[in-house]
Amino acid sequence: MPNEALTVDQLDEKALLARIFPRLGPDTALLGPGDDAAVIASPDGRTAISIDTLVQDADFRLLWPSGYRTTGFDVGWKCVAQNVSDIRAMGAVPTSLVVSLTLPGTTEVSWVEDLAEGLAAGIAALAFEQCSVVGGDLGRGDQIVVTAAVTGDLQGRRPVLRSGARAGDVLAHIGALGLAAAGLAVLEGNVDMADPEAADDQELAGLAMAQLRPRPPRAGAGPEASRAGATAMLDVSDGLVRDAGRVARASRVGIDLDAEYLLAKAASLAPAAARLGADPLVWVLGGGEDHGLLAAFPPDAALPQGFVRIGQVHDGEGVTFGGQVPPATGWDHFAG
Amino acid sequence: MPNEALTVDQLDEKALLARIFPRLGPDTALLGPGDDAAVIASPDGRTAISIDTLVQDADFRLLWPSGYRTTGFDVGWKCVAQNVSDIRAMGAVPTSLVVSLTLPGTTEVSWVEDLAEGLAAGIAALAFEQCSVVGGDLGRGDQIVVTAAVTGDLQGRRPVLRSGARAGDVLAHIGALGLAAAGLAVLEGNVDMADPEAADDQELAGLAMAQLRPRPPRAGAGPEASRAGATAMLDVSDGLVRDAGRVARASRVGIDLDAEYLLAKAASLAPAAARLGADPLVWVLGGGEDHGLLAAFPPDAALPQGFVRIGQVHDGEGVTFGGQVPPATGWDHFAG
Repeated sequence: MPNEALTVDQLDEKALLARIFPRLGPDTALLGPGDDAAVIASPDGRTAISIDTLVQDADFRLLWPSGYRTTGFDVGWKCVAQNVSDIRAMGAVPTSLVVSLTLPGTTEVSWVEDLAEGLAAGIAALAFEQCSVVGGDLGRGDQIVVTAAVTGDLQGRRPVLRSGARAGDVLAHIGALGLAAAGLAVLEGNVDMADPEAADDQELAGLAMAQLRPRPPRAGAGPEASRAGATAMLDVSDGLVRDAGRVARASRVGIDLDAEYLLAKAASLAPAAARLGADPLVWVLGGGEDHGLLAAFPPDAALPQGFVRIGQVHDGEGVTFGGQVPPATGWDHFAG
Repeated sequence: MPNEALTVDQLDEKALLARIFPRLGPDTALLGPGDDAAVIASPDGRTAISIDTLVQDADFRLLWPSGYRTTGFDVGWKCVAQNVSDIRAMGAVPTSLVVSLTLPGTTEVSWVEDLAEGLAAGIAALAFEQCSVVGGDLGRGDQIVVTAAVTGDLQGRRPVLRSGARAGDVLAHIGALGLAAAGLAVLEGNVDMADPEAADDQELAGLAMAQLRPRPPRAGAGPEASRAGATAMLDVSDGLVRDAGRVARASRVGIDLDAEYLLAKAASLAPAAARLGADPLVWVLGGGEDHGLLAAFPPDAALPQGFVRIGQVHDGEGVTFGGQVPPATGWDHFAG
């Protein structure tokens, strides 16, 4: 009975917080939620910090053309995934999140509870034990907007910047490529995917979940890359070509992507792409939100487990694909 | 020519950022904006952190009934004011902000530039030199939503919690009381205030500015209170009675507010209240957003400069006003 579901405009702030807090998992802060500010440990003497926002109808749809209804869990999970990825891309480990929720009064309380559980599950799966939601803010708005700031501990290491790649370095990647973009096509497309967890077509359902609940590589991947001597690193959130271009520009080098490897990646997505009328190479080269890590390593470095050689850094500028102009670029959050 | 003004949907993310960055003032971070995450110094080995959001039509109106149009500068300033107040209320000093902007495509670029200048001016006026905007996020939405997370340095001191007040403590306050609420009445009321800076009626204009660009007490007030032995402290953002109630509940004490002092405060607002058909005592006791500091001190403590005795902590529970039930409470961001 949707009309009878409890909505947030029926609760005051304190009552809504009482629904959220118990679902957030163990509090790992020196001082957790409930005061004007939280206090976290920064044993390194430095703190990495980043912020990222998910907006209804811009970053996710509540109801997709496929029939799928985005759950609070999906949004909570994705919020964690995109935020912790930024911290790992510095070679740091996530230590806390503060989360601001802007909610229409008609939002069902169960959806918000589910979001809290998605945050907790995302942290448990994607961060380390020392990380938790340590604070937040609640307010009203016409759309759901979920913003999290995330902190990280560099554990004594230098941060791995975008600007350190050198000619001769190997470009390597860990994580999915194109899956979240393929999942977006599934959700946006004319494919009945009202419940991907129950869908008969497991391949398409898996792609939808890659968009809804992206799975970045394991939490240790960023720090391991740092220890292995990564000269540059970033989180691939806006598409491989676009994000590789950021490394190239910041490092004043050129990057040639390995066409053979990436064409094989695209070929593995070809059956799904054929059903959705899409070009799988566009997903692989231009798709965002997979939150893999792209890193440059000195030519003699041993790549950490899971990193795959995906290109070459050279004197020059810009990004090429097997020496040619890339057939797809990437995503601009704003003009996109 | 409003139709010819440049709007954010005419710029890509990079071009818009290029308008914002130069206006943010000096970058004080170890690693500033431009990478996946920023890196700030945390010399204390702990980091205080908080997050706060301003939503169009919930926390501010773009066009008020008085005719005033909220500027980007106002929103940037207020974003800083409310965020740094949470850090000071712990006895810490602000060290960085990360800011996420959700903007409709029709937002004028000049409004966003003005917001960046408001952030910088707010930091210069309200924080210390070591603080700056170190990172951010840009995205699209139907409403303007500005979220900032703020970090702070405890400088070796223990954080001042809400829970430490003891029977016998003096309750003291520094900052405005009721001015932002009075300003809200000016802006919402039938008073022509299209440009408060040019308004003939300087009193009402000043009140409007207290709502639009709140001026919390000086940056040193929180740390000074901590050094003076404050047993409990918070930022008065939701109204004196409501926020005093938070201290009382967290500390398991009762608080009696000084009726004589607060009635005199209200009397000073009586002329404006009469013109606006409002009760000035409701502003003083229930008005939020002034971002003063409310702190409890041991009875023998010397109050830091600017703090005024405003009540008494006693064995018991709840908040009274000269021993009686307070005639006004405060603001619930959510149910409000």
